[in-house]
Amino acid sequence: MPKADGQRVLRDLNHLRTMGAFKTGVHRPSLGKAHLDSLSWLKGELEAIGHTVTIDGIGNVFGIAPGKGKRLLGGSHLESQNEAGWLDGPLGVVYALEAARAVKADPALAGCAVDVAAWCDEEGHFGHFLGSRSGIGKLTEADVDAAVDRTQGISMRDALAKAGLAGRPRVTVDASRYVGYLEAHIEQGDWLEANNLKIGVVTSIVGICQFLVVFEGVQNHAGTTRMAIRKDAGLACAKLCVAIDELFPKVCGPRTVWTTGRITLEPGAPSIIPGRAEMLFQIRDDQPAMLAKLEAALRDLVAEASKAGPCRGTVEVLRKSTPAIMDQRFQAAVEAAAEARAPGCHTRIPSGAGHDAQVLSEVMPSGMMFVPSIGGISHHWTENTSDADIAFGAEVYADAVGRLLAG
Amino acid sequence: MPKADGQRVLRDLNHLRTMGAFKTGVHRPSLGKAHLDSLSWLKGELEAIGHTVTIDGIGNVFGIAPGKGKRLLGGSHLESQNEAGWLDGPLGVVYALEAARAVKADPALAGCAVDVAAWCDEEGHFGHFLGSRSGIGKLTEADVDAAVDRTQGISMRDALAKAGLAGRPRVTVDASRYVGYLEAHIEQGDWLEANNLKIGVVTSIVGICQFLVVFEGVQNHAGTTRMAIRKDAGLACAKLCVAIDELFPKVCGPRTVWTTGRITLEPGAPSIIPGRAEMLFQIRDDQPAMLAKLEAALRDLVAEASKAGPCRGTVEVLRKSTPAIMDQRFQAAVEAAAEARAPGCHTRIPSGAGHDAQVLSEVMPSGMMFVPSIGGISHHWTENTSDADIAFGAEVYADAVGRLLAG
Repeated sequence: MPKADGQRVLRDLNHLRTMGAFKTGVHRPSLGKAHLDSLSWLKGELEAIGHTVTIDGIGNVFGIAPGKGKRLLGGSHLESQNEAGWLDGPLGVVYALEAARAVKADPALAGCAVDVAAWCDEEGHFGHFLGSRSGIGKLTEADVDAAVDRTQGISMRDALAKAGLAGRPRVTVDASRYVGYLEAHIEQGDWLEANNLKIGVVTSIVGICQFLVVFEGVQNHAGTTRMAIRKDAGLACAKLCVAIDELFPKVCGPRTVWTTGRITLEPGAPSIIPGRAEMLFQIRDDQPAMLAKLEAALRDLVAEASKAGPCRGTVEVLRKSTPAIMDQRFQAAVEAAAEARAPGCHTRIPSGAGHDAQVLSEVMPSGMMFVPSIGGISHHWTENTSDADIAFGAEVYADAVGRLLAG
Repeated sequence: MPKADGQRVLRDLNHLRTMGAFKTGVHRPSLGKAHLDSLSWLKGELEAIGHTVTIDGIGNVFGIAPGKGKRLLGGSHLESQNEAGWLDGPLGVVYALEAARAVKADPALAGCAVDVAAWCDEEGHFGHFLGSRSGIGKLTEADVDAAVDRTQGISMRDALAKAGLAGRPRVTVDASRYVGYLEAHIEQGDWLEANNLKIGVVTSIVGICQFLVVFEGVQNHAGTTRMAIRKDAGLACAKLCVAIDELFPKVCGPRTVWTTGRITLEPGAPSIIPGRAEMLFQIRDDQPAMLAKLEAALRDLVAEASKAGPCRGTVEVLRKSTPAIMDQRFQAAVEAAAEARAPGCHTRIPSGAGHDAQVLSEVMPSGMMFVPSIGGISHHWTENTSDADIAFGAEVYADAVGRLLAG
């Protein structure tokens, strides 16, 4: 059985934490210097155990072990959200790296291996799962051409050129070589912590429907325009938020979530009635039928608001991802590895966040495991997991990998 | 009776329109080059009729006629909102300039005069009525120190230095010299146009209470945080908007208006539950008691929302201005001048927008008159008034000035 070294995992993660350190977290956006440093570090670590390593034309790292035996692909991502946590991504990469070391050192698994991937831009600075979609051969050159950093406005082409990666080929994984893909991640929620559990066996990854809702009214002077004749797009937007809050709980599934992440009123001045309002609205669920039902409910609410007036609303789909079901054998392997170490320390749980595993699941059996997030916090620099939980997770991950390679 | 030359007024206004031209309007922010050009132009026009002209240390233009007879102060402002209309401000300045010319040319008013002021920054790029408050001696050096352009971030001190005005004394008007202050302006609403009227006799200028309402919740991941435990500050903000929309119509006055001009959710990302929401909320009325009543109603709604949870709301007053009552004699003079030209073409009307006349009314009798705004549009480059209405307004203004000086 491959045995992970928890202290080495912590050392690696703490070393990565120095790259783009921000308070107790990191600021390591895709293709920025800190991110590129982390890719180079990973390349070095993988080469140290004999892997052949490529950093490809979209910033994906692939470490391929020698040999022709059974192999598993492990990985996650090394970039972070802006000013965010140190474990979101790196945990899964370092677990895979450690499992590669442990499998290599395990005589019982001679000939078997773990290849390691760090997918670029899982956090979506430039797009949506650009790295993993490239890795499974589903990203076109036109997609890359169109990608622009949402914070800094730089195009992905320019960022790749600046990183010295322009012109390199993009590598596609040969799915037939793998028993499958296993990704570890922090939970990003409070379920494990609240229930004193250590391992989440992920059953599915939610689909996300992201909408842009726009209301058009009439911009006018906030002092001289009588209330009776106003067409206030901001008020229309607020009413929709409240209508959603009243309707959705009555029709949603047990784990559905929905979020208005941004509201923009134009022109956004204290003394001007907003003539246009935009809201970013998102629905997540692991059932395609539920996503479709709630999209219809949203469209009905906006149509009703338009009909009632005085503003006209429209709904645009910005993106839709399909829910992904995790492979049963992978779920069983993670569960057995956790149970073997601490009976009852685990639970089956869907992932409310998107992950590269949902992309990889399109081409090979895929699984995910979660470790606890302190306070359920993520996408913030205070995100954290205890050292003990990190080390425990690494052991479970390596053990699960061993079971999948041996099975 | 002083007789305005409508064609000359149109010529002057169209000339000003070339300074900072933007589409059919102007972009002439305070102390920018186009604004400074307009001040120099006004200085030249006033000197041409024998006025002694100062551009003072805050960018106010004062043109003082020679002589010791009765005099009236007329004026408005020459800067514009960003990318806004050509008449908002300049109309009142050019009417005052034309009245100064007409009074000078009228033998029946020998010894009388119109002094002309262009108040800097009525549009509030740097603050609130900084020019007119300086002109009545109610602006401190500390106020000027603190003023910063809300669009460009440049301090007023730096902008004044760049304009070559730093170090010049600021001029204070001697209120005792004047029968009072008369300001003309476009209506910025649709009341005159909708009722086929040509002149609005302003009865009062509303007071404005500007608030910053903040809700504090908890920022978290939009996929992994269950609905039941969310503290969504954006939703709290939307609920407040709707609660105001339901309550205020039941308790407001006949001309009260209220506006949420901006909503900001933090961090404003599609997949993050907003941890903080800010809204800029404003109430306008010409009755101090009504303003106080509605402020109390707002505070009650926010307190109720905080008590109900899960987010905590606070209300901060950003600024308050007091309603200003226009002088009865000034109202009568404008009304008589309009009636003499076109019986029934006028109406008494409060001003829903703030104007320098509200500041001047603190130290001398003050009046205002409105001309129609096409479609009620203002603070937008499409703002406009017909040439005929502009010329007619200039005649009424000069006539009203004659009546006030003769009376």
